[in-house]
Amino acid sequence: VPPATTRSATAVLGWDIGGANTKASKVDIEDGRLSRPRALSVPLEMQRDSAALVPALRRLAAELRGGPVTHAVTMTAELSQAFRTKREGVGFVLDALAEAFPGEPVRIYGVDGRFLDPAEARDRPLEVAAANWAATARFVGRQVADCLLVDIGTTSTDIIPIVAGEPTVLGRTDPERLLSGELVYTGALRTPAEAVATAVPLWGGLCPLAAEGFALIGDAYLWLGTLEARDYSVSPPDGRPATREFAGERLARAVCADAEMLDEEAVGTIARALAEAQVSTVAGAIRRVSARHPLLGIAVVTGLGDFIAAGAASRAGLEVSSLADRIGDAARTAPAAAVAWLLADETARA
Amino acid sequence: VPPATTRSATAVLGWDIGGANTKASKVDIEDGRLSRPRALSVPLEMQRDSAALVPALRRLAAELRGGPVTHAVTMTAELSQAFRTKREGVGFVLDALAEAFPGEPVRIYGVDGRFLDPAEARDRPLEVAAANWAATARFVGRQVADCLLVDIGTTSTDIIPIVAGEPTVLGRTDPERLLSGELVYTGALRTPAEAVATAVPLWGGLCPLAAEGFALIGDAYLWLGTLEARDYSVSPPDGRPATREFAGERLARAVCADAEMLDEEAVGTIARALAEAQVSTVAGAIRRVSARHPLLGIAVVTGLGDFIAAGAASRAGLEVSSLADRIGDAARTAPAAAVAWLLADETARA
Repeated sequence: VPPATTRSATAVLGWDIGGANTKASKVDIEDGRLSRPRALSVPLEMQRDSAALVPALRRLAAELRGGPVTHAVTMTAELSQAFRTKREGVGFVLDALAEAFPGEPVRIYGVDGRFLDPAEARDRPLEVAAANWAATARFVGRQVADCLLVDIGTTSTDIIPIVAGEPTVLGRTDPERLLSGELVYTGALRTPAEAVATAVPLWGGLCPLAAEGFALIGDAYLWLGTLEARDYSVSPPDGRPATREFAGERLARAVCADAEMLDEEAVGTIARALAEAQVSTVAGAIRRVSARHPLLGIAVVTGLGDFIAAGAASRAGLEVSSLADRIGDAARTAPAAAVAWLLADETARA
Repeated sequence: VPPATTRSATAVLGWDIGGANTKASKVDIEDGRLSRPRALSVPLEMQRDSAALVPALRRLAAELRGGPVTHAVTMTAELSQAFRTKREGVGFVLDALAEAFPGEPVRIYGVDGRFLDPAEARDRPLEVAAANWAATARFVGRQVADCLLVDIGTTSTDIIPIVAGEPTVLGRTDPERLLSGELVYTGALRTPAEAVATAVPLWGGLCPLAAEGFALIGDAYLWLGTLEARDYSVSPPDGRPATREFAGERLARAVCADAEMLDEEAVGTIARALAEAQVSTVAGAIRRVSARHPLLGIAVVTGLGDFIAAGAASRAGLEVSSLADRIGDAARTAPAAAVAWLLADETARA
């Protein structure tokens, strides 16, 4: 870290700029000590509305900051269909940061744990693309040196072995991580029902699901009461409200039925089957990664879907520890809190 | 059929009003003989643009008709998320027909093979919802009395046993047909890659696909040259053109990669794996339905995905006969041609 740009800052704003949400978290540095992260999140779909990023960055920063800050950034937005390549996506995010925070120090988190300058990040997009799991893992590793991190967000799941405080993984880029099972494309909200289960119980049989994105897994959790309307941070597929009633209609539509054809019990059976299928998938993925690190006995669970992670980890025979119990609500936006904390820590030690 | 409304008509316009496309087909009646169906199709996404239905109906009718016609209608649009229930969807389509063709006779095809008046159809939405497969099956049954109809459209697949000219099925409504395997939710264009295969070969491993709808199966066929750009009748997921180059970018994105990370060979491997997975799925579904009708030795294949149906049927040990060889291009919009032909035939015999 170049001392000139960070030594004066008394706070770090951490950013996790994703394809569906942008999250910010602030860590203050006072007398060399770091505050608990404070976090905010706004829905922002990069593909539909990338022009909204600069104003969103400014608005979140204005709400959180009290004085000069250094920005610590991690991103997954570069994978959005808004960009033809990750290089283009990383460049877009860097441009937005420069426009939102002119003259302010901006540091981009790399997968290997070093913060890069924006110019370096622009040259090496694969080092900063989707490095959010690495930030969360190193942050968690400072608290639990040996554990399996299971972070289930709105859209995807990271399963990261942490050994002696360091993430110890097979994959670094997204495709490598899909191959290694360290990234599982299932989340607590945005995953379409048909990507969670191929079939659900109906009328005594097993009914395949329509491949139409009619319902999200979030509709199952909304129906079951596991998630609340305020957790449903994306627009529902049918454009109707994020209420239990409409979630039920969406679940019925997923088997090409409707509210006149299915009663509450039939809809509840579908919702429970989807929830069970997701826990089972995540448990299987945990077992696969765990098999490479049989000595890790604790799972640290976090993210909007920490309840899924807890159920799956426990089914896979691991002890469960909740990151929210350690850092509060910021656990739901763990990468933003983590990247802020990591840069603040580096700054405080400098 | 009430004679007063249809005896004067010398032509029937058949309609297949779907969730993503609206198709029309005309059959002329001259001296008691029926012409070959002539067909047109326009993309029309009910959820985004239901207000476009009335003008689309008028435009297609104006292009096809030469004089007075009777309208014969089948629909699947009622399943669209634009409508809360099938009842609401059926009502919407009936309203659009009445507005587009005031004073003209309109007959709605029911699953059991009888044409209903609009008022009857409105009262009994489950009899006319998604009855298109029944129309195609009875039309095909007039030509090949005993066969397995395999109709693969843009979005879904119908596998219908036809015995002595009549569809002989377990399911009538969409959910019943999903349960019986007579409806398979896989199509030649709109099915997301991750609904076709859970993983594809990449870098010597097997890579799970992102559950983001980044690529459609149509991108695989566009890349392989099996489908052409003009067949790609929906807007690609990333909003970019339906060309081979962009199809390749979408396929790369489906494994969270991009055109800088994957070469042509890697993309080709993904495309071929998706195509193979789809043939394998359809072949399995054909075997399941066939097992209930072991005497049916011929598959009549049709729809945009007739090439998939042919490969799958032949893999399942059936002889393949192409509907396009019998009725020409109208086979791609078989339900519209079928419903026109069936009402024209009824009229000619009256």
